[in-house]
Amino acid sequence: MIGTGEVGRAMYALVERLYPICRSLTGDGVRETLRILAGLVPLEIHEVASGTQVFDWVVPDEWNVRDAWIARVNGERVVDFLTSNLHVVGYSTPIRKRVTLEELRGHLHTLDGHPDWIPYRTSYYERNWGFCVSRRQYEALVEPEYDVCIDATLGPGSLTYGELAIRGGTEREFVFTTHVCHPSMCNDNLSGIAVATFLARALAQEPRRWSYRFLFIPGTIGSLAWMAGNREILDSIQGGMSLVCLGDASPLTYKRSLAGTSLVDRAAAHVLRHRQRGEIVIDYVPFGYDERQFNAPGFRIPVGSLMRARHGTFPEYHTSADDLSFVSGGQLADALDACLEIVEVLEGDLTYVNQSPYGEPQLGRRGVYRSLGGEPGLGDLTMAMLWVLALSDGSRSLLDIADRAGVPFRAVKRAADALAGVGLVRPGNNGNRP
Amino acid sequence: MIGTGEVGRAMYALVERLYPICRSLTGDGVRETLRILAGLVPLEIHEVASGTQVFDWVVPDEWNVRDAWIARVNGERVVDFLTSNLHVVGYSTPIRKRVTLEELRGHLHTLDGHPDWIPYRTSYYERNWGFCVSRRQYEALVEPEYDVCIDATLGPGSLTYGELAIRGGTEREFVFTTHVCHPSMCNDNLSGIAVATFLARALAQEPRRWSYRFLFIPGTIGSLAWMAGNREILDSIQGGMSLVCLGDASPLTYKRSLAGTSLVDRAAAHVLRHRQRGEIVIDYVPFGYDERQFNAPGFRIPVGSLMRARHGTFPEYHTSADDLSFVSGGQLADALDACLEIVEVLEGDLTYVNQSPYGEPQLGRRGVYRSLGGEPGLGDLTMAMLWVLALSDGSRSLLDIADRAGVPFRAVKRAADALAGVGLVRPGNNGNRP
Amino acid sequence: MIGTGEVGRAMYALVERLYPICRSLTGDGVRETLRILAGLVPLEIHEVASGTQVFDWVVPDEWNVRDAWIARVNGERVVDFLTSNLHVVGYSTPIRKRVTLEELRGHLHTLDGHPDWIPYRTSYYERNWGFCVSRRQYEALVEPEYDVCIDATLGPGSLTYGELAIRGGTEREFVFTTHVCHPSMCNDNLSGIAVATFLARALAQEPRRWSYRFLFIPGTIGSLAWMAGNREILDSIQGGMSLVCLGDASPLTYKRSLAGTSLVDRAAAHVLRHRQRGEIVIDYVPFGYDERQFNAPGFRIPVGSLMRARHGTFPEYHTSADDLSFVSGGQLADALDACLEIVEVLEGDLTYVNQSPYGEPQLGRRGVYRSLGGEPGLGDLTMAMLWVLALSDGSRSLLDIADRAGVPFRAVKRAADALAGVGLVRPGNNGNRP
Repeated sequence: MIGTGEVGRAMYALVERLYPICRSLTGDGVRETLRILAGLVPLEIHEVASGTQVFDWVVPDEWNVRDAWIARVNGERVVDFLTSNLHVVGYSTPIRKRVTLEELRGHLHTLDGHPDWIPYRTSYYERNWGFCVSRRQYEALVEPEYDVCIDATLGPGSLTYGELAIRGGTEREFVFTTHVCHPSMCNDNLSGIAVATFLARALAQEPRRWSYRFLFIPGTIGSLAWMAGNREILDSIQGGMSLVCLGDASPLTYKRSLAGTSLVDRAAAHVLRHRQRGEIVIDYVPFGYDERQFNAPGFRIPVGSLMRARHGTFPEYHTSADDLSFVSGGQLADALDACLEIVEVLEGDLTYVNQSPYGEPQLGRRGVYRSLGGEPGLGDLTMAMLWVLALSDGSRSLLDIADRAGVPFRAVKRAADALAGVGLVRPGNNGNRP
Repeated sequence: MIGTGEVGRAMYALVERLYPICRSLTGDGVRETLRILAGLVPLEIHEVASGTQVFDWVVPDEWNVRDAWIARVNGERVVDFLTSNLHVVGYSTPIRKRVTLEELRGHLHTLDGHPDWIPYRTSYYERNWGFCVSRRQYEALVEPEYDVCIDATLGPGSLTYGELAIRGGTEREFVFTTHVCHPSMCNDNLSGIAVATFLARALAQEPRRWSYRFLFIPGTIGSLAWMAGNREILDSIQGGMSLVCLGDASPLTYKRSLAGTSLVDRAAAHVLRHRQRGEIVIDYVPFGYDERQFNAPGFRIPVGSLMRARHGTFPEYHTSADDLSFVSGGQLADALDACLEIVEVLEGDLTYVNQSPYGEPQLGRRGVYRSLGGEPGLGDLTMAMLWVLALSDGSRSLLDIADRAGVPFRAVKRAADALAGVGLVRPGNNGNRP
Repeated sequence: MIGTGEVGRAMYALVERLYPICRSLTGDGVRETLRILAGLVPLEIHEVASGTQVFDWVVPDEWNVRDAWIARVNGERVVDFLTSNLHVVGYSTPIRKRVTLEELRGHLHTLDGHPDWIPYRTSYYERNWGFCVSRRQYEALVEPEYDVCIDATLGPGSLTYGELAIRGGTEREFVFTTHVCHPSMCNDNLSGIAVATFLARALAQEPRRWSYRFLFIPGTIGSLAWMAGNREILDSIQGGMSLVCLGDASPLTYKRSLAGTSLVDRAAAHVLRHRQRGEIVIDYVPFGYDERQFNAPGFRIPVGSLMRARHGTFPEYHTSADDLSFVSGGQLADALDACLEIVEVLEGDLTYVNQSPYGEPQLGRRGVYRSLGGEPGLGDLTMAMLWVLALSDGSRSLLDIADRAGVPFRAVKRAADALAGVGLVRPGNNGNRP
């Protein structure tokens, strides 16, 4: 077991290592990323052929880019893919020709307000080519003609994703999904990849009540490809979370699943409420990340999303400013810690039955109660024991009790363990079979 | 189609035209009012004979007043019905005699706090006579004796109401009711009459999903007379609104039906919430206007009420200060506009079923999605389409979706139309049969 | 009938009379207390033998203390039970010996922050001896040895409680419980004893719809002993309240039963909301007084708690500062008044059915409505009548109506009585059989 500071450093180091790789929906950048992750966790890597029908979609051709540039007619490169892989619009078709400035401008994308930032753009489903440049680069393009080159391949191949299943005491499972299709941006989504990787490592270390599945997948089409190929598994999924944008300085936000009241929704809301570091919980909206696919009407699998800065609402979103300085190991470790607390609730949320239900049992003679009466205030553990005894009638789980009592799940769990140890409660038949 | 400014002017002109007429529960003033309305909309005019039992009530005798005054013994009129028809207590019995000042005072009604305002009072169900005078007029009565005259008839006749039924695709209907029994006061209730009239005109202009009924009726006894005579229709009424006090400067208030969750309640609340001009929604109270009769235990028809200044809470209420300067064409037109928006929700609130429910369908290839990815933010229409797709599982109507998404109904309706146009949603069987 | 001031004085006089008595879980102090109460209300006094099993507990040995002191070796008493019975830890074993200061200190209990206050401590279920002393007394103990004496008996005997059953029109009953096991402290719980006694007197004065039971019992073990011996009665209990800490200067607090929505919960919340003297209502917590036993999983009897300063949260709690100056007759009388109002709701909460449900009945011709129309505002009684008529469809009780209308229960009750008097409503079959 490594310490929190050490975990944060290790997560940040993973982000650093993955940062330079040019990822997209498909291609060798995704494969290289997954190979690196497979060195940390036992990832299975899958390929889905271009042209495969997945529900309403078709797996696209595979795209790989070796080099790309805009150069003066004298050969001097003024925009260079090797400097930043954001310079090329994702899924740009190959091109090499001399263009007028006017034609070139029709293929350029820039950002207002941040003269040095390069935007991130894609054109997955409409064939086109383009460059993303900073405003300053754009304004420096003043010559009548330029040479442009996108040395890319776009043709039949496959879509690549990574999968890791951790088998617990039941095949009923929770799923964590994180997208691996973004090029050099750290918060979106190397942060999510790092948290998912280290969470998977932690969960694999000891036996679990539930099974857990981790999907490292290209956004949207990747989830759909996995779901289309694993329909028999879908009914076993109790819920889950997409892990995205978890490295920046903002407090954590949990976005509920559409159902909003599944176990993972309640566990995440509980954990975030008690962390009291500015965390918030928001209702489901049908835009965001891969949770959209799981919550769709044909599936209605309650997958929420854990994030920090929210999708589309921070200036660095989908720009070159989402770089290594925008995320920190401390925030990554803190997000991992929240995930582990949420899993702790999922794992420990049993329903107990009070075995001495006729009034309050005499805790004192069982050694789980102070012996001197009259003092004002009861210790936290005693209060938690009284809550567990009062509410454990078989209809309320420990999470129900913790929420009703307004105390952290851990306190209620510790109380239930103490009471179970002296035979005053025991797990009921209802909902405890994993 | 006339413009909003023009509509407001036309509505105000109607108020001006109806203002001088002396209306009461019964009588020629109501008839003349309805004749004028019948020139604008195809109103059926009904008469219910005095003495007719309507539930717990009996239709009263008919009252008509030609002239009334208080005069000095030298014949000089000091209070004159021809100056303001509020001067006579409604349903005053005929009288012509000389009275002492003391006796006269026992038949006078005044207002505190507003020395020039005349109050409006009635004595429908207890035979009596009386005058309403301003405080200044009251104080000027200093002579020992006066002559009083109320040249009225009060005897068997009939109660008159107007009715307009607009037949839609189903006989299930919504009802709009407005009281026509008040003499020269503009907000209460020439404003309601004007809004109802112009709303009826607008609804009759094109085919409708639902049927609509408009009742121009004397308050309480008029509603009851209509209900007693049309019991077979009552089961077809899905809900409705009373339209009252809609011309003053206050923001709109919607008072819920007793049930509070009927379609018209939800539509009105939705529309008012999104207008954001200070509108509020209040719970049902069993005082107000004709909604009381529809919501009674024997009927429980969910009729709410749309108003501006609330019944009994504004100083001008039931006084001569509720005059032509107290209402404006702009406010009347704005109220009409809110009614039309509410009807738009009633008409458009279908339940759709997503035809591509396994994940998010690929909007791009259907031409209803921008093609360039990566840009932060989606357009409002795209967001609305994602909401419709995410929630249209047959259990949620467009209004449910709009309320869940927190966006105006129109945006969701437009999105549903776009999606229906490319076959991605289609109306379900549930609740859409008008 | 005595006046409020007189009642307050009588309640305070009872507190004064009971104050010097040394009560405990068992023993002659409890018996003397109950004998005094039996002079005011027809109390039955019960004894339960030591060793009797009551659910998870066993009735303890009986404890009586005649004298106790700490004395200098020269015989001078420095701590004396005759000065304050709080000086002896409750259920101390008998002792008489010379001890070193160090050994003595291991048996002393003091309070921080209040140098002159003596704490109240007990050791019911672990055999030990001890003294409670003020900080000042503690610091004055500087000699190397002291003589200590606790002249007590602790051996087989019985636990004593008082019970008073007031039979009403049904054997379904409400229970009021108050603990009698505390020595010389006024708020906790001579105040509760005084309120319960005077409430019982008031309830016995006239026929009642429901039955009522009053339990004057030692805390926890007393309730359990009563419940164990009266299991056939438990199913008849509709709910109740523990009456505790009702004499101090704080506003009233009602603590809900665990169910939280029983009739007594709703009645108490209603009454406290309308008193508007700072009263609050809080959710159930499984610590406090005897309500814990009734709400336990094996019983789930909805017993709440009425109090002022809350259990364990005021500095004087369980100290010698909870003395005669800490409570007042005015506050005791006010608490009694709140209890009587709550009982008034329990007694009067019938469900009526509107006998003229088709629209609003004509109140005027029945003489329960003003005859002059047009005036803004209706009287409170008229408004309450309209609420009763509008909601009395057999599914809503008067308390439901009062809560929906936001008016005091009394107003609604008065309106229902007026309407019943003219035949417009009559009690339904649902829920009115006591």
